[in-house]
Amino acid sequence: MSPGECKFCAIARGETDARVVFEGERTLAFLDHRPVFPGHVLLIPREHRDTMLDAEPDLLAELAGDAQLLARAVETGLEADGSFVAVNNRISQSVPHLHVHVVPRRRKDGLRGFFWPRNPYSDDAHADQVQEALRAAVAALAR
Amino acid sequence: MSPGECKFCAIARGETDARVVFEGERTLAFLDHRPVFPGHVLLIPREHRDTMLDAEPDLLAELAGDAQLLARAVETGLEADGSFVAVNNRISQSVPHLHVHVVPRRRKDGLRGFFWPRNPYSDDAHADQVQEALRAAVAALAR
Repeated sequence: MSPGECKFCAIARGETDARVVFEGERTLAFLDHRPVFPGHVLLIPREHRDTMLDAEPDLLAELAGDAQLLARAVETGLEADGSFVAVNNRISQSVPHLHVHVVPRRRKDGLRGFFWPRNPYSDDAHADQVQEALRAAVAALAR
Repeated sequence: MSPGECKFCAIARGETDARVVFEGERTLAFLDHRPVFPGHVLLIPREHRDTMLDAEPDLLAELAGDAQLLARAVETGLEADGSFVAVNNRISQSVPHLHVHVVPRRRKDGLRGFFWPRNPYSDDAHADQVQEALRAAVAALAR
């Protein structure tokens, strides 16, 4: 998708209305229109990036700091007991413009069971194999 | 909980075994022993922090950069189609030591329906009220 057709670029340019809650120099946050819970915020870079993997270090650091601020804001502003901060890269990413979800959480809000289905390793050899594949990938990327 | 009793501090000190996949200067990542999917990694600061809200800017930036590296690693190392990066602050946080989940995702992996139950705003006035509460909280925190 070109930035010209991107829904979140249109919000960043002010062409589409959104319920903005935070304006950073290179970032912007607004209410998700289909919230997991009321107060569910989406934080985006104003300039198009497809995923978190496409953000350069300084933009990534800015997004992390803003996500922290917004996590504090949902907790203090909405009297939440906690918060959930998440990024979907490609899979489950509804709009292909990097966005950080910041969601207020409350005790017994009913989300836990949904959130973390588990798919265990079949045995130690399986876990060994996955560990090795990741170590090799990290080593290759860190080069 | 004091750091002396913390499970992840024990891993960081090398007192408890873990399947380590990445070692940063101030950070460490290892396989979650009850993965959402095989290759589910937990990235932690070596030094104890309760939640993401307690990380100072430079540590937060380092964690964000490492999370990006690990998201790339689960995609390249495990041939995943995408990745999920998330932090639970207090609610659904199984160990009270800041940890970033990095989870490989695949098309049709069955997670989508589970992940995002929606709880819409009852009406525009409700959304207005939540937006205002968050804007006020952001303004108070940014002071």
